[in-house]
Amino acid sequence: MLLTETLLDTFLITRKESETICAPLEIEDYVVQPVEYVSPPKWHLGHTTWFFEEFLLKPYLKGYKVFDREFSYVFNSYYETVGKRVVRADRGNLSRPSVQKVYAYRQYVTNAIKLLLDKVKDEKMHQLLEIGIHHEKQHQELLVTDIKYILGNNPLLPAYTDSIKEHREESHRQDWISMDPGIYEIGHDQDSFCFDNEQARHRVYLQAYEISNKLVTNREYLEFINGGGYSSFELWHAEGWDWVCKNEISSPLYWHTIDGEWFNYTLEGLQEISGDTPITHLSYFEAFAFAQWKGYRLPTEFEWEAAQEYFPWGYRWEWTESAYLPYPGYRKEEGALGEYNGKFMINQKVLRGGSFATPDNHTRFTYRNFFHPHLRWQYTGLRLAK
Amino acid sequence: MLLTETLLDTFLITRKESETICAPLEIEDYVVQPVEYVSPPKWHLGHTTWFFEEFLLKPYLKGYKVFDREFSYVFNSYYETVGKRVVRADRGNLSRPSVQKVYAYRQYVTNAIKLLLDKVKDEKMHQLLEIGIHHEKQHQELLVTDIKYILGNNPLLPAYTDSIKEHREESHRQDWISMDPGIYEIGHDQDSFCFDNEQARHRVYLQAYEISNKLVTNREYLEFINGGGYSSFELWHAEGWDWVCKNEISSPLYWHTIDGEWFNYTLEGLQEISGDTPITHLSYFEAFAFAQWKGYRLPTEFEWEAAQEYFPWGYRWEWTESAYLPYPGYRKEEGALGEYNGKFMINQKVLRGGSFATPDNHTRFTYRNFFHPHLRWQYTGLRLAK
Amino acid sequence: MLLTETLLDTFLITRKESETICAPLEIEDYVVQPVEYVSPPKWHLGHTTWFFEEFLLKPYLKGYKVFDREFSYVFNSYYETVGKRVVRADRGNLSRPSVQKVYAYRQYVTNAIKLLLDKVKDEKMHQLLEIGIHHEKQHQELLVTDIKYILGNNPLLPAYTDSIKEHREESHRQDWISMDPGIYEIGHDQDSFCFDNEQARHRVYLQAYEISNKLVTNREYLEFINGGGYSSFELWHAEGWDWVCKNEISSPLYWHTIDGEWFNYTLEGLQEISGDTPITHLSYFEAFAFAQWKGYRLPTEFEWEAAQEYFPWGYRWEWTESAYLPYPGYRKEEGALGEYNGKFMINQKVLRGGSFATPDNHTRFTYRNFFHPHLRWQYTGLRLAK
Amino acid sequence: MLLTETLLDTFLITRKESETICAPLEIEDYVVQPVEYVSPPKWHLGHTTWFFEEFLLKPYLKGYKVFDREFSYVFNSYYETVGKRVVRADRGNLSRPSVQKVYAYRQYVTNAIKLLLDKVKDEKMHQLLEIGIHHEKQHQELLVTDIKYILGNNPLLPAYTDSIKEHREESHRQDWISMDPGIYEIGHDQDSFCFDNEQARHRVYLQAYEISNKLVTNREYLEFINGGGYSSFELWHAEGWDWVCKNEISSPLYWHTIDGEWFNYTLEGLQEISGDTPITHLSYFEAFAFAQWKGYRLPTEFEWEAAQEYFPWGYRWEWTESAYLPYPGYRKEEGALGEYNGKFMINQKVLRGGSFATPDNHTRFTYRNFFHPHLRWQYTGLRLAK
Repeated sequence: MLLTETLLDTFLITRKESETICAPLEIEDYVVQPVEYVSPPKWHLGHTTWFFEEFLLKPYLKGYKVFDREFSYVFNSYYETVGKRVVRADRGNLSRPSVQKVYAYRQYVTNAIKLLLDKVKDEKMHQLLEIGIHHEKQHQELLVTDIKYILGNNPLLPAYTDSIKEHREESHRQDWISMDPGIYEIGHDQDSFCFDNEQARHRVYLQAYEISNKLVTNREYLEFINGGGYSSFELWHAEGWDWVCKNEISSPLYWHTIDGEWFNYTLEGLQEISGDTPITHLSYFEAFAFAQWKGYRLPTEFEWEAAQEYFPWGYRWEWTESAYLPYPGYRKEEGALGEYNGKFMINQKVLRGGSFATPDNHTRFTYRNFFHPHLRWQYTGLRLAK
Repeated sequence: MLLTETLLDTFLITRKESETICAPLEIEDYVVQPVEYVSPPKWHLGHTTWFFEEFLLKPYLKGYKVFDREFSYVFNSYYETVGKRVVRADRGNLSRPSVQKVYAYRQYVTNAIKLLLDKVKDEKMHQLLEIGIHHEKQHQELLVTDIKYILGNNPLLPAYTDSIKEHREESHRQDWISMDPGIYEIGHDQDSFCFDNEQARHRVYLQAYEISNKLVTNREYLEFINGGGYSSFELWHAEGWDWVCKNEISSPLYWHTIDGEWFNYTLEGLQEISGDTPITHLSYFEAFAFAQWKGYRLPTEFEWEAAQEYFPWGYRWEWTESAYLPYPGYRKEEGALGEYNGKFMINQKVLRGGSFATPDNHTRFTYRNFFHPHLRWQYTGLRLAK
Repeated sequence: MLLTETLLDTFLITRKESETICAPLEIEDYVVQPVEYVSPPKWHLGHTTWFFEEFLLKPYLKGYKVFDREFSYVFNSYYETVGKRVVRADRGNLSRPSVQKVYAYRQYVTNAIKLLLDKVKDEKMHQLLEIGIHHEKQHQELLVTDIKYILGNNPLLPAYTDSIKEHREESHRQDWISMDPGIYEIGHDQDSFCFDNEQARHRVYLQAYEISNKLVTNREYLEFINGGGYSSFELWHAEGWDWVCKNEISSPLYWHTIDGEWFNYTLEGLQEISGDTPITHLSYFEAFAFAQWKGYRLPTEFEWEAAQEYFPWGYRWEWTESAYLPYPGYRKEEGALGEYNGKFMINQKVLRGGSFATPDNHTRFTYRNFFHPHLRWQYTGLRLAK
Repeated sequence: MLLTETLLDTFLITRKESETICAPLEIEDYVVQPVEYVSPPKWHLGHTTWFFEEFLLKPYLKGYKVFDREFSYVFNSYYETVGKRVVRADRGNLSRPSVQKVYAYRQYVTNAIKLLLDKVKDEKMHQLLEIGIHHEKQHQELLVTDIKYILGNNPLLPAYTDSIKEHREESHRQDWISMDPGIYEIGHDQDSFCFDNEQARHRVYLQAYEISNKLVTNREYLEFINGGGYSSFELWHAEGWDWVCKNEISSPLYWHTIDGEWFNYTLEGLQEISGDTPITHLSYFEAFAFAQWKGYRLPTEFEWEAAQEYFPWGYRWEWTESAYLPYPGYRKEEGALGEYNGKFMINQKVLRGGSFATPDNHTRFTYRNFFHPHLRWQYTGLRLAK
């Protein structure tokens, strides 16, 4: 548990950070939703604010007056407990509230939280605030990837900024880390914050395995493309092959060929592919097919966690072979917050690590991210195992 | 044919008018596309400008440099002749070009047209300019109705302005105008401008008929609602009934019940229904079902045109029973402008009159508007015949 | 009005004819529904029988016991008045009632109608019986075309029979018939049977026009194909072009290329295309595009009816430019039979003539068939006008 | 490995059994496909036969002449390696080949296999034959459940037979089996046949857990229904709740209320619900929601396999919490048979046990069945764990 003062600092820094991410945007960029799973930046800014209003200010701050009664309808994401909401696919259809109004809403709620922290000392409330902070950090990650999609999907391919280090190369030689068979402890067991899906810490038996000390690079993935990987059905899951055929997929997201050369859209605009950079923006289907093609496989999330101390990580989300399922002893929260994680534990794959878009101090060895296997607008890459 | 000076004036007034319509908007309102048939205001502003660039400046102004090569891709609507374009459903997914950039584009093209008119005297070019002006006027009508949809679809129901006269009551008593059987001349035959679909002027034989001198009002339509019109399948076309059931339609567009009272969204915000106001925002299906329920029918477009001198009109588009088809002797233009009207002559119904949203001097007795029978975001009403 | 005895004969002949059409089928062919608009032959046999049970036996034959109470649910087509029904798309999902049971149902109802005619003399009942007979004749036409679709859609391309004259060539030279401008009488005005949509007979003014004395042939249509007709968007309606692109249409229905030669599936199996045979199995979109390509147009249904005495007809349904709309003075029947025609008068095109599949004595000069513009499993061809 | 003689016997018995299952059917029942995942019985009979022709007769029987070259196109299920095929959703659109022809095909291939076994002694061929036999047994299970769906989906609700014991009650008292934490061996390691997905046998660490010795009954499930289980979103996965709402699910498959009483469709026709019978025809979503409501959970497939010796099983497929994933050391077959299992290891849940529809000697403790979480036309039930 953080002390109140640190908590306030962390809260204010986090609130500020969301706005810093949006600083380079034009007003128009805040509004659009090119695909259902990408939310308008305006919505992220409002939704993270609504979370504090709904779960902290309304129950804990006596006399608190909501900023606008309609906002609950607009900014609720998926909490059925908390009432009706705009359906997800319609978020990009709303021009109002305006961006300016959303910023005013943020300011209003931030101030009210300051007041709350000043007035109310309550363990449970502090825990909720910490969840709210981590919730906003999660949305910061989405803010970055959603902004990249909004700009990278635009035929004008505008840059987000002219100086950002989206890519980080790994300079060491690829090698295999040998792991012994045996029982490993998996999951979170420390005092520090974690989400409910990282618990309970428990034992897992792993067979002997080897795991690469290096992420797969663009150069290696280009060999897969040039070697016909996207037209070899036997490398793919049946649903993956359907996805490839139906969407005419033939390269990672954001890749373009111009006069026979490969480029990819980055936050700095269109750039030539760099061979040494870890591959990213792959779906699980593609990561799996690549591993099949190499004659290897993806690690499970347990193999990954057991071995993570032996490799650098933190700049790509890495697909694992594991389905997103509850750990033994998993307990979901009571009430609306019980909808946070558990209800998504179906048809999704676990990602481990943390990406360029992940806020500082947000990820950890036990952190479990999860997405449907066809999605690839996150900074998703892979590491091989055998 | 207008003289050059008048033409320039008309051009400049028209260009100005589009921007006046958008003046009350927030930047965000320019961007969204809540349904496929509603385009973002930003797109209308850019598309009408692109029309002048594509069909006048590029062919006629020597040395003209296009504002941005990518804009053709963004702002082409449906002209297959002129190359690739953003698909219609994706217009609301584009945050760029920004609104500010679109206004700069408008200024740039408007200035270039001034230069063109100064430098080039050419009959064909003047004709194209006139078409461009009428084209922009058509889009002004859509601008108003699209803006209404964007705001009226928003759960916050923001007003567009606080003083606008969207409704105009007809104070005279309803009566039937008796028309003799015989041959009537239909279509445009004057020197003034018309679209290709209003020609050739031709003879039509009409049986004896009667047509109402007054539009149907909200009060009459409420009787239809209260009389179970929306649950009586026998009043509807089969496709109309499917539309009612699938979309759970039970009132005109923009109508809401609050505590048992009927309100409708107007450009001034939510307002109580006024019984004497002509009903509007009906689909053809609804107009037809209402007429069935009354024991009457809709007039054909020929009946309407033959009788129009006997009733006031111009503030509602009125659904007719006529399908949108070519007149005898219809000839479409050569080249890209041939795509203007002819290729839509299938599965649409003709509307006659002109609405609140129609620019001054834009409609006329022979003007034929057309929409698919389920659409109702235009100011669409009806007049009965028998 | 037919006399009772003739009526009984006509009834019995019609009942028999439906079964003759189905005689060459395997049991399995009675059951399937490869696309929504093609009904299983079993369903046609049951539905036409249900019509007699529902509209004649139940109201007029005292003590009549329905064959099976569930059949109304299974064999109602679209009569909302008469209660719930299996949705159209699900007709091919029903293996029961078996074909044998459906034939027993037919026998049972046919016998009961004989009894009814014997016992009850009633003008209205006789009229309903006549409608029922014509209704079954209409379904015989669909039976033939649906059977052709069921077999022609099967990869084994089985023949229906080995001796049938599906095609009839026109040996005369193509020429243009010149028609004077003036008023023509259109619609049915005789004592004999007609459907409600053929009335009232009324006056139509036609401009001077010319109409071909000959149907368009396969040879002419092949020139359109080879001339790039399917890849020239400017020949098509916007909705037609979408249809071509989305469905990758590049030839009429049932046409196949094998080693560079054109074949088409006929009721005798796969056969080489014969150049002199009238083209058939075209959608309205294709008929329109072909006419555009030739520099001509399709006739309206009025032009067709006014000129029909000057050309042989009856072996192809011919697309017209006319939308399917009510004639002046059209009155739909009271009750369930009012659903027969009127509710389909939207988004459909009129066909005139009568095809190979049309039963004897079923079509006439005033007969109006109608289909959506993308459909082409009927024997649909075209005649040019200018 | 079975000896040749036993292998032949098993082959012939298996071939016979498929036909015995179909004996009560009408010809029409063989043809239809009411939903995509239910195949026509005719197709199962042909497909299992094609498997022997494709993988045994063509490669191993010199001079073998295929029965019909087109059948490969019709009866291939999903083997991309083996060429084009009728898409799954279209299986019910094919009336040909006829049922009689399919039986002739079966006889022809069965005879050829007899000849093959007589002439060729080859270890690999024997293995393929064994796979073919198990493949046909798998399809027998589907035959039963698909037939049930075809009849149970028909509004006439015809019985399959009048004497079949589809339900088996468990008479013992419910109790919890306590399992110790520790390492368990999971997977197949015996000489007898198994599918590739049951291997390799490997170690799994299980935390202490308790598992019920009894399946959940209809009575218990009725309490869930009456207790509002289908309207309590908090019990469901997000995708499960969408499934409930979109499909308006409020009871297990085949359940009907008549005058307030619950009935369910069985192979003997409609019958009253028996409280003591194990619940079946549940989706994974429903099984999960029920367990949530009871405050328990589903077992993992490993917990199930470790404890299976302590409870009777074999008459219901039981949903587990486990996603369908490869075991450590899983290796898929070379060539077309490599498509058998591995490519489905995504977005599916594991079922353990074996149902009424499972052929004798077909299931075993290590057998892993798998379905998408919304499917419930198998005999799917559940057992609780905690």
